Amino acid sequence: MVRKKATAAESAAVLTEIVLPNDTNTLGNLMGGRLLHWMDIAAAIAAQRHSKRVCVTASVNNVSFNQPIKLADIVTLEAKVSRSFNSSMEVYIDVWLENHTSSEKIKCNEAIYTFVAVDQIGNPINVPELQPETELEIQRYGGALRRRQLSLILAGKMRPEDATELKKLFFDEKGEEKK
Amino acid sequence: MVRKKATAAESAAVLTEIVLPNDTNTLGNLMGGRLLHWMDIAAAIAAQRHSKRVCVTASVNNVSFNQPIKLADIVTLEAKVSRSFNSSMEVYIDVWLENHTSSEKIKCNEAIYTFVAVDQIGNPINVPELQPETELEIQRYGGALRRRQLSLILAGKMRPEDATELKKLFFDEKGEEKK
Amino acid sequence: MVRKKATAAESAAVLTEIVLPNDTNTLGNLMGGRLLHWMDIAAAIAAQRHSKRVCVTASVNNVSFNQPIKLADIVTLEAKVSRSFNSSMEVYIDVWLENHTSSEKIKCNEAIYTFVAVDQIGNPINVPELQPETELEIQRYGGALRRRQLSLILAGKMRPEDATELKKLFFDEKGEEKK
Amino acid sequence: MVRKKATAAESAAVLTEIVLPNDTNTLGNLMGGRLLHWMDIAAAIAAQRHSKRVCVTASVNNVSFNQPIKLADIVTLEAKVSRSFNSSMEVYIDVWLENHTSSEKIKCNEAIYTFVAVDQIGNPINVPELQPETELEIQRYGGALRRRQLSLILAGKMRPEDATELKKLFFDEKGEEKK
Amino acid sequence: MVRKKATAAESAAVLTEIVLPNDTNTLGNLMGGRLLHWMDIAAAIAAQRHSKRVCVTASVNNVSFNQPIKLADIVTLEAKVSRSFNSSMEVYIDVWLENHTSSEKIKCNEAIYTFVAVDQIGNPINVPELQPETELEIQRYGGALRRRQLSLILAGKMRPEDATELKKLFFDEKGEEKK
Amino acid sequence: MVRKKATAAESAAVLTEIVLPNDTNTLGNLMGGRLLHWMDIAAAIAAQRHSKRVCVTASVNNVSFNQPIKLADIVTLEAKVSRSFNSSMEVYIDVWLENHTSSEKIKCNEAIYTFVAVDQIGNPINVPELQPETELEIQRYGGALRRRQLSLILAGKMRPEDATELKKLFFDEKGEEKK
Repeated sequence: MVRKKATAAESAAVLTEIVLPNDTNTLGNLMGGRLLHWMDIAAAIAAQRHSKRVCVTASVNNVSFNQPIKLADIVTLEAKVSRSFNSSMEVYIDVWLENHTSSEKIKCNEAIYTFVAVDQIGNPINVPELQPETELEIQRYGGALRRRQLSLILAGKMRPEDATELKKLFFDEKGEEKK
Repeated sequence: MVRKKATAAESAAVLTEIVLPNDTNTLGNLMGGRLLHWMDIAAAIAAQRHSKRVCVTASVNNVSFNQPIKLADIVTLEAKVSRSFNSSMEVYIDVWLENHTSSEKIKCNEAIYTFVAVDQIGNPINVPELQPETELEIQRYGGALRRRQLSLILAGKMRPEDATELKKLFFDEKGEEKK
Repeated sequence: MVRKKATAAESAAVLTEIVLPNDTNTLGNLMGGRLLHWMDIAAAIAAQRHSKRVCVTASVNNVSFNQPIKLADIVTLEAKVSRSFNSSMEVYIDVWLENHTSSEKIKCNEAIYTFVAVDQIGNPINVPELQPETELEIQRYGGALRRRQLSLILAGKMRPEDATELKKLFFDEKGEEKK
Repeated sequence: MVRKKATAAESAAVLTEIVLPNDTNTLGNLMGGRLLHWMDIAAAIAAQRHSKRVCVTASVNNVSFNQPIKLADIVTLEAKVSRSFNSSMEVYIDVWLENHTSSEKIKCNEAIYTFVAVDQIGNPINVPELQPETELEIQRYGGALRRRQLSLILAGKMRPEDATELKKLFFDEKGEEKK
Repeated sequence: MVRKKATAAESAAVLTEIVLPNDTNTLGNLMGGRLLHWMDIAAAIAAQRHSKRVCVTASVNNVSFNQPIKLADIVTLEAKVSRSFNSSMEVYIDVWLENHTSSEKIKCNEAIYTFVAVDQIGNPINVPELQPETELEIQRYGGALRRRQLSLILAGKMRPEDATELKKLFFDEKGEEKK
Repeated sequence: MVRKKATAAESAAVLTEIVLPNDTNTLGNLMGGRLLHWMDIAAAIAAQRHSKRVCVTASVNNVSFNQPIKLADIVTLEAKVSRSFNSSMEVYIDVWLENHTSSEKIKCNEAIYTFVAVDQIGNPINVPELQPETELEIQRYGGALRRRQLSLILAGKMRPEDATELKKLFFDEKGEEKK
């Protein structure tokens, strides 16, 4: 079967949530765990739409929480597949925050999750390639390979010296260590 | 004020959960987002016990999901502070899985979260140093510095050439690139 | 103060939900009450964005449930303000259904809710006028007046003979009863 | 099979709920969507008891929210079938509110939902006729036909001129337009 | 102030719940903990209505679970104050079960909870006396004293020999040990 | 088959929970019903680990709530099987409370639940005997028999004069009534 391509826009998923009392800690701010849960749902929907398969969370890459989100704020999550590798998909989740009185809207989070598409009995199954379109999508598509190498090294499944993309962080084009 | 030290055992937190229908996807397996939420709660309790302060999630480092967890399985999470840096704490969460019929118990996940201790108005506040005791705690204490450097580089807050710990992945002791 | 105008697109809200076990009845279909709840949240966000105020549900107009929605289906709700009257806003909610395996996407519901914008102590407060743009928005904007008259008659707050818009259902342009 | 009759009292359902923090908006009042959800459950139980079948929500007719319900208030919902049509049942839900300190009890809402009884594979199935008893039940039984006609017209399934009951709103007994 | 009396009927509370997937264990039966939670809410409402105060759970006396309750069954809880002692109230909860297809209705549980009425800062406050009316209410009113004595003995707050009511279990009217 | 023995430590279950807004009453304290639910889960896990079977709640014995637990407090529940009788197990749940700022840790509750181990179709099935080890475990093991007799008497399944353990409350060693 020929692998088909699909764009990120075709499978993008938007979630909007209002922060309720049970989602907050004692400072009245959204708890990290709740946001991680929402991110997982948004990303799972994007992956499922891209692959037309049930998708399971394979890993969470660095997520940072830069900004407190308050009770009653409106949180919008947008999830887009940034690259696919055989049966796995890297998904970017961008999170925007709207204050419920000022209705000011600011970017407050970025997260990267990886999902695997599986068949009925849970075995991995190939997914379409991702065709990046916008400048941001192309940039994230490129970075996905470096993140994958880092992830494989940390898991002991790749030797650092084979991580060609990652090494660019430390070496210039001539192979000299950056000073 | 002299910074005090505390051990990981003093603040370890154990959570036990039963996987209920609403926690599962269409394959009958625990959804990743729910586990991320439980991990966040376990880690927050450990951080709070270590710092005796309200703690907020600062970041989630690589989490992998290796193994499907089924409906009705019993999941045990153990969270321990692995190292502290001024106001932030790295917390390791180990997850064990018990099948509800065989009662076989296996390690199924490892995750690393970072928390920041804050005062009443949400400003960061210093926390006690972590005194590792067991072999595993000492190993994780060491790795915490490398992970912190990687995190700072990826956030653009540290130059790769200053990441002394991380560079050991690519260079031998004499500063030669590993081949 | 001059009343400002705003378009429906500016305040549109999109919610995406996965149908979980606890959302379903014994036939494995989404319970109506859960969908009504999601609709209320979607519509409240749209009304809040339009008015930049806290909004409370004033009424629910005819909602029909035409089609069973199954466990694990993805439900997308899009809410748009269709017209505003002083402090109240009529909001249309369109619901689409995606089967989780075929990823076929079909329109499955339409609902109309009315919200009132309130100030800090709960008193109604004026909201911007709605400026319809698309053909569908213009059609719904027109219908909103007829629905408002029907609602006022049924509540005993308007005499049927004053309901100019509604009477067009029964009388032709010359005032003759339609046969 | 002879259609049996049953009274509204035989299938009446009473639900009592305490308003919890997660049920409230930022003004500390019960959110409309939560009440719509509770109404649906109360009405579904009444319909199920009347028909002795699984019942699914077919439509929601005008619901108005007249009065803020506060955190910790006790809400009592009473649902009664008001009329049946083949496989569908109109259900009235009356909502009373008790303040948790004064224990004063006031009527705060009325809503009308329609349910359809279905068999094991989801096909509509006939239900017993409703035998109204009290004055209020008789009045609501009568109104049910008018509401059904209005609903069919709005759905484009009936011509306005055939809506004999509804036309009484606009025409006197001699067929003259009311002035 | 003269202590007023109130009947059980005046403060009786009825709760109706449908058993949803998340309420069940792996056998598809209602979990005991969920029923205990529902019982607590029903009893708290009855106690609050009797005392016109906020009431807190003081203790749970013997509850037995005789009969599995299945997914989708309708559970009706009726809570009635059976006796009051100064600031505390004993509340009986009777639980009926309706199968969702047969609509057969059977008594499946009885439970006894004790609540204490408190003022704004949480201190116990006197409540009206309970005036039993029906035969069952009179019988439960009588038993309440014996249960209270047993509870005080088990808590070490009363000497067995002072538990006049409880001793009737072991001694006949002449003070002879029953054989 | 020879009945095997198992210790309480082998099946002990620890649950840690943070009190969230929806868990509290209007005084900001944990509602009794929520704690009863958590206790049931903790005890069910311990019973399940002891029996390696699905376990269902059979009864709840006296639980007292001595101390208000506040919003944001950390609650730790430890459940241990205290004795087994054929297919049933008595489980003790000890509850500790940690204030989230002082991190002071105090014992706040003790509860006793009884569970029955069942096979796939819900029939009771024998479980291993409990081998008490610590002084506290031995004391609770002894008390379990007295509680069982009391429970059987109250249920009308045992004559008071056969309740040898329970009678010790009222009679001295020579069979004389205690004065």
